[in-house]
Amino acid sequence: MQSISLLNQLIDALKCLPGVGNKSAQRMAYQLLDSNRQGAIQLSNILKEAMENIGNCSVCRDYSEQAVCQLCANTRRDASTLCIVESPSDVLAIESTASFHGLFFVLLGQLSPLDGIGPEEIGMSVLANKLSDGVVKEIIVATSSTIEGEATAHYIAQLAHKNDPNIKVTRLAQGVPLGGELGYLDQSTLALSIANRNTLDF
Amino acid sequence: MQSISLLNQLIDALKCLPGVGNKSAQRMAYQLLDSNRQGAIQLSNILKEAMENIGNCSVCRDYSEQAVCQLCANTRRDASTLCIVESPSDVLAIESTASFHGLFFVLLGQLSPLDGIGPEEIGMSVLANKLSDGVVKEIIVATSSTIEGEATAHYIAQLAHKNDPNIKVTRLAQGVPLGGELGYLDQSTLALSIANRNTLDF
Repeated sequence: MQSISLLNQLIDALKCLPGVGNKSAQRMAYQLLDSNRQGAIQLSNILKEAMENIGNCSVCRDYSEQAVCQLCANTRRDASTLCIVESPSDVLAIESTASFHGLFFVLLGQLSPLDGIGPEEIGMSVLANKLSDGVVKEIIVATSSTIEGEATAHYIAQLAHKNDPNIKVTRLAQGVPLGGELGYLDQSTLALSIANRNTLDF
Repeated sequence: MQSISLLNQLIDALKCLPGVGNKSAQRMAYQLLDSNRQGAIQLSNILKEAMENIGNCSVCRDYSEQAVCQLCANTRRDASTLCIVESPSDVLAIESTASFHGLFFVLLGQLSPLDGIGPEEIGMSVLANKLSDGVVKEIIVATSSTIEGEATAHYIAQLAHKNDPNIKVTRLAQGVPLGGELGYLDQSTLALSIANRNTLDF
């Protein structure tokens, strides 16, 4: 019986990457062996270090290798505005717009009682604790525009209101995306964009 | 000054993979952290082991972690037919057709005097040594259909003929690919496919 060659083990292991099937994994394995062994060894080291050392920030629950992440530790951010997102990749997406200067809170999920994901799993006690000091004046609830996302947003709004009746709770605007053609847009989004229409200044 | 976070180092390192840009690297990093840390650590281990231990087979120059690769060590392969290819990935491509049962020889390049790649760099002395025992009766030269590939094929044919005037040297058939539409085919390939036309049996 032949043992599985190291090359085939490598091709198999590369398939754990999202979007990488057999063909791409083969191409990656051969190209790394052909011309970038140094880069591959570096990737191996960082991969292991990252998987073992990246945990969650104790304040905002974003990924971080420190107890408090760089965003939360940054005193130049506006601590009075808190943006609540579902996942760490949402933080990256919003940060890349460079149009938000407040702090984040990551739910790491959505309320979904059927899957056993209740308020505790999405960090509601951590959030309540964070809100209790009265620093946050506005919460932007940037959860997905799905049934679970809306339910989560509603729950958070109630929690925030119970904690401080004067807190402002907002939700991301919904409407036509930039570059979007009306013919390709679904009816519900279009209906929302009509209902929430803005006045043109001139 | 902020140091580069481990997450950003991971995203950077993932970009050494072919076909992976910034967006894909971000998606990979987050997905591995979210849901497959175990797979990522396994990938890290195999990546390092493969890069450090995979060398070239001393007989055919294909990638192998042993001195002699599994194909060369397999006594059930037809040792009288030798297929000569440019790179280890070509071996995989031909093996996947399951229509060749001989042995391989990997050039690890093409003759290209201007780039300093001469006969020694593409293993011609190893090949001459392999041919000297008279076991090989046919050589299939499966180099690319480029100028360098053709020059390499020519050189190999001469070397083989000098070693054994009775050896058969063949080249892969050229013509219309399966599923190919004539309208999309280049003129040279079409001209070749006419010159090399086959008789239809009925």
